[in-house]
Amino acid sequence: MAENRLNIVKIGGALIEESQQLDKVLQAFSQMKGPKVLVHGGGRDATELANKMGVEAKMVNGRRITDAASLEIVIMVYAGLINKNIVAKLQMLDQNAIGLSGADANLIQAKKRAVKDIDYGFVGDVEKVSLPSLIKLLDGDFVPVCCALTHDKKGQILNTNADTVAAALAIAGSKCYRTELYYCFEKSGVMEDVNNPNSLVQNLDKRTYNILKKKGRIVDGMLPKLDNCFAALNAGVDKVHIGNLEMLEKETKHTVIQL
Amino acid sequence: MAENRLNIVKIGGALIEESQQLDKVLQAFSQMKGPKVLVHGGGRDATELANKMGVEAKMVNGRRITDAASLEIVIMVYAGLINKNIVAKLQMLDQNAIGLSGADANLIQAKKRAVKDIDYGFVGDVEKVSLPSLIKLLDGDFVPVCCALTHDKKGQILNTNADTVAAALAIAGSKCYRTELYYCFEKSGVMEDVNNPNSLVQNLDKRTYNILKKKGRIVDGMLPKLDNCFAALNAGVDKVHIGNLEMLEKETKHTVIQL
Repeated sequence: MAENRLNIVKIGGALIEESQQLDKVLQAFSQMKGPKVLVHGGGRDATELANKMGVEAKMVNGRRITDAASLEIVIMVYAGLINKNIVAKLQMLDQNAIGLSGADANLIQAKKRAVKDIDYGFVGDVEKVSLPSLIKLLDGDFVPVCCALTHDKKGQILNTNADTVAAALAIAGSKCYRTELYYCFEKSGVMEDVNNPNSLVQNLDKRTYNILKKKGRIVDGMLPKLDNCFAALNAGVDKVHIGNLEMLEKETKHTVIQL
Repeated sequence: MAENRLNIVKIGGALIEESQQLDKVLQAFSQMKGPKVLVHGGGRDATELANKMGVEAKMVNGRRITDAASLEIVIMVYAGLINKNIVAKLQMLDQNAIGLSGADANLIQAKKRAVKDIDYGFVGDVEKVSLPSLIKLLDGDFVPVCCALTHDKKGQILNTNADTVAAALAIAGSKCYRTELYYCFEKSGVMEDVNNPNSLVQNLDKRTYNILKKKGRIVDGMLPKLDNCFAALNAGVDKVHIGNLEMLEKETKHTVIQL
């Protein structure tokens, strides 16, 4: 039981959009020891396919509005094209990858978001992760590769933010494993000054976070991301890491978030 | 060990193309007891998507020619749209479905078909089924839902005929389970006269098959299908059933093939 650890790694942005970057990040991921889960987004490919098919991609507050036609596209791109490409590449690296949406193995159940000011369409807010399914797969030495889709257990697939999926899996995993969550993207971590590459925040706790927020240093997409991180830590996740792919292979400097 | 049985059910044609038919067949499948696997094709949807995207679907001898653009489409449609739709519907029916391509869990390894007279493109001939992966999933009380994609273990997804995938899984399963293979489609079974709905062949063995072939009664798509069936029986599969969805729920009259 000394090694009852679990790593959840979320990759997104250019890391999955560019083939060479993807190869590198999968190589790095394959070097990680012990039980692990990969979670991927897949924004640009879905937008490109939507354009080809004449379906307009609508975004509100950084969230995709998912009508029926858009849902078909994200299912095809996330669960199909991107997921199977990643799984096949990991299999080449002798990782026994198994691709999953939230419907598979009933991994992530969600509720269709209620319509208030905005109708987000077929977007799901996570309700429940099946820890028994997750454990069975990890105990079977499989490496789950999860796309950002959930389901409502009534036959409907729903679109869910990939950061949220990763956090939900980490929170569920933390009931059973010492769980660390990695958000892996192009940048080397959280920056105190987005224009200064030398301003990496290496350690972030709740107090520092609040100070940076007050100073206006945490902006745009980073705010919900970090709120997500602290929610995960509050719910039992051990550590959250934010950085580029080198943090996976060489443990280079990145942002480590702890309560 | 009294019930060390495995049912492999392949569905195709109108059964997956029409939503009501699909609901019925999934309902029937969900009633089947014990370890089971569902295998699905998905021809028409892929052709429709290809048309929308301006990719021409090429067929030679009933096989799709799979160039790079077509491969992306079949991955999106088979592993994405159709597979996840089936998985979500089965989850609604309290079946712990888990969708798989041959790359997932390294379930089915294949070799890209060599170019002779025809270059089939990214088409894979099955080389190896991972029986350990299959057993782990079945022992975990998952219901594998397999689409007709394989991989070469070098990072490449390949397109493989769904009947062949079902037969390969049944043959692998037969090493460990008393395995029956169900080919479920629109018709009630093998007909001695395709124009006479009362000419159902209820029991087919190798001798009868050869007689019917000589008489010219087995035609078109049924020939490779039945050759596949006998190959599966020769390799250890217990019985093969061919019929419509009612054979799953009510065991109505259909074609039972045994050596």
